[in-house]
Amino acid sequence: MSILIKNVNVLTMETENGQLKAPFTADIVVEDGRITLIGSAPEAEYDEVLDGSHRLAMPGLINAHGHAGMSLMRGFGDDMELMSWLHDRIFPTEERLVENDVLLGGRLAVLEMIKTGTTAFADMYFFCDKLAQAVEEGGIRASISQGMNFSPAERIQTAFALNYKPTTDRITMMFGPHAPYTCSEEFLTAQAEVARESGIPIHIHLCETQDEERQIKEKYGCTPVEFLRRCDFFRGNKVLAAHGVWLHDEDIEYLKDYDFSVASNPVSNLKLASGIAPVKKLLDAGINVAVGTDSVCSNNNIDMFEELRTACLVAKVRDLDPLAVPAGTALQLATVNGAKALALSELGVLREGAKADIILIDTDQPHFFPRHDMISHLVYAASGKDVASVICDGKIIMRDRQVLTLDEERVMYEANEAAMRLCYSK
Amino acid sequence: MSILIKNVNVLTMETENGQLKAPFTADIVVEDGRITLIGSAPEAEYDEVLDGSHRLAMPGLINAHGHAGMSLMRGFGDDMELMSWLHDRIFPTEERLVENDVLLGGRLAVLEMIKTGTTAFADMYFFCDKLAQAVEEGGIRASISQGMNFSPAERIQTAFALNYKPTTDRITMMFGPHAPYTCSEEFLTAQAEVARESGIPIHIHLCETQDEERQIKEKYGCTPVEFLRRCDFFRGNKVLAAHGVWLHDEDIEYLKDYDFSVASNPVSNLKLASGIAPVKKLLDAGINVAVGTDSVCSNNNIDMFEELRTACLVAKVRDLDPLAVPAGTALQLATVNGAKALALSELGVLREGAKADIILIDTDQPHFFPRHDMISHLVYAASGKDVASVICDGKIIMRDRQVLTLDEERVMYEANEAAMRLCYSK
Repeated sequence: MSILIKNVNVLTMETENGQLKAPFTADIVVEDGRITLIGSAPEAEYDEVLDGSHRLAMPGLINAHGHAGMSLMRGFGDDMELMSWLHDRIFPTEERLVENDVLLGGRLAVLEMIKTGTTAFADMYFFCDKLAQAVEEGGIRASISQGMNFSPAERIQTAFALNYKPTTDRITMMFGPHAPYTCSEEFLTAQAEVARESGIPIHIHLCETQDEERQIKEKYGCTPVEFLRRCDFFRGNKVLAAHGVWLHDEDIEYLKDYDFSVASNPVSNLKLASGIAPVKKLLDAGINVAVGTDSVCSNNNIDMFEELRTACLVAKVRDLDPLAVPAGTALQLATVNGAKALALSELGVLREGAKADIILIDTDQPHFFPRHDMISHLVYAASGKDVASVICDGKIIMRDRQVLTLDEERVMYEANEAAMRLCYSK
Repeated sequence: MSILIKNVNVLTMETENGQLKAPFTADIVVEDGRITLIGSAPEAEYDEVLDGSHRLAMPGLINAHGHAGMSLMRGFGDDMELMSWLHDRIFPTEERLVENDVLLGGRLAVLEMIKTGTTAFADMYFFCDKLAQAVEEGGIRASISQGMNFSPAERIQTAFALNYKPTTDRITMMFGPHAPYTCSEEFLTAQAEVARESGIPIHIHLCETQDEERQIKEKYGCTPVEFLRRCDFFRGNKVLAAHGVWLHDEDIEYLKDYDFSVASNPVSNLKLASGIAPVKKLLDAGINVAVGTDSVCSNNNIDMFEELRTACLVAKVRDLDPLAVPAGTALQLATVNGAKALALSELGVLREGAKADIILIDTDQPHFFPRHDMISHLVYAASGKDVASVICDGKIIMRDRQVLTLDEERVMYEANEAAMRLCYSK
């Protein structure tokens, strides 16, 4: 399978003297899943040719935290008190959730991700094999973890991450201990040990709310990070922590020496009034920060362009510093940093030899004019709807807004039917 | 001119028992600029028929603060220190600005507004007649004010608002004294007096930054609102104040008894690290709050769906209250409240007899599923790109994403040419 993208404006996300290399015009050739040329393509036969003349090519975006299976509950209880929302809406509904719901909700999420330029995501939920099926069908990548809470330590041995055999290398696994406040000390200690032995990364919620910190303080007399240290959680492990809103300076000082990433979820943190993560402080300490959307219950879309912009904007107001997170850094959060967070370090950049996850942006729209600075436009003006075409793993999965891997009408219809059954049947 | 919108999901923005009336399916008939029927349309001949079966109809959005003429500088200097940005980039460029630049930049802004569902906006800038021309061509509405600063009091008599004779009733005027820190006490006092006499509303920047408050304190020993009170600014006047980030409790207590609206510009306030406006507090006090985008130099788009969502989200985190501004309220900020802010109180709602400013949203997209709550989806998931068709003043100005009033390619091309000349020529 070979693809030629002809005459396109290329943002590689490579850096030069600490700055993103400015976009330049070139051809891109993709063969057997990899980028084989960025430059002037030879006259040859290609299986597919995409006209890039009104397009900008950049790496597919990477969503570092979400719960695709919750897509059936988008808009099912917004603007409610957190506890009433959880206990009256989400938990009773999740008790009725069956594996087919995760398949149908997963497909809806994968469809929305493709349509907004996301080609890889990290997920934590139940019925993981069904989400894996949706990802396989959609043609994108995911690092999937099974959320575990209130579990006995032995259950780790039955975890998805240890037992699932993926049918495509677009799917990788992580462990998913839910959070310090929902897992026991014994469980988290055992989890850390099994992760070290297996070399499988860990995905966890950490320091999302002030209330979480209060709960952990009451129970253990320390902060959530100190509690995890007590579980020997970080040593020798690769940890992806979602949220990190209430990370303290001492936490950051400690965590910077570990293989530790934060997936910041700025829209969810605003919507649930959790707070604003100290993104600049984390970056300054050398900690890898990526961006995630969280689920559509607390967002309520999975548009990574909106998410990276929000990450950038709220970082500025948090520190009352308009330079806190500049545009180039915001793009890195959603590309190269996301790749590192998902332990898929080959991704997030366009270069010869790299895996071909490429999105083409339709820049022939008013908000991309004048042509002063395309990096600024991508961050401060663009949206996921500007994505015209998507290539993942060297295959075209969306072409001029038409998704080729999923039946859009059917995915929306079936998700809706399942949601009505799930949420309103007794 | 008659239009039938057949079988559409209608969000009227009317309230019932303090809540927005839920969307319902109906036909909408428009005749001679007004909505003549929302219900079951009779068999008849209509000049235009729009199929509403995969659409939601709602009032066109109202952008309560912007500077359309600055569109040529989108992306020309982001992530800079405010003073360096102003003195090295914006001010020297604005000195070279000619009236044709405002026409071409204005057209670019009007085009972007149409494509994202805005049908009326309040603007403050120079060469106002050129912006008026762009608005007239585009077919939307604007309330235009000429920005005045460092002016002698007598110059008010030459203000655009007093002298311009609009060629369409889609254009109205306001006075535009720039801000308390750029206008003298004498000027502001005279401005207030002339506004009272003429009955023309005032558009002003107020309480945008902490630095503004510091400057006014140093100069006058009081807050910006106290300074304006000293100029007898509010009595008998209709005032639209942009930003209002640093309004104090005593200011709010005073202003609630006047015909005073705030245009909150949340994205601009984040991007320039100005702060977060006390929207919930203002609403609780009974003050009319609308939403604006500010210019694309500090946003950098003019997508009102993104803006109203951001207003709603940051209000929650500001007060650490997830219920601070619920979805229905967020939609009101950008419709009925915007209409009130612009002194165009007929707008912002769909009802029989009202002026026909209607947008049709393409809800056949993954982020509008499942169908739990369309109001939630519009606020938390939608974007301006979801707008399929736009009717303003009873005329179709965009149909299935094709703008009918402006030549899109030409507008983008000419704006770009002008911007390159303006920003990079010596």
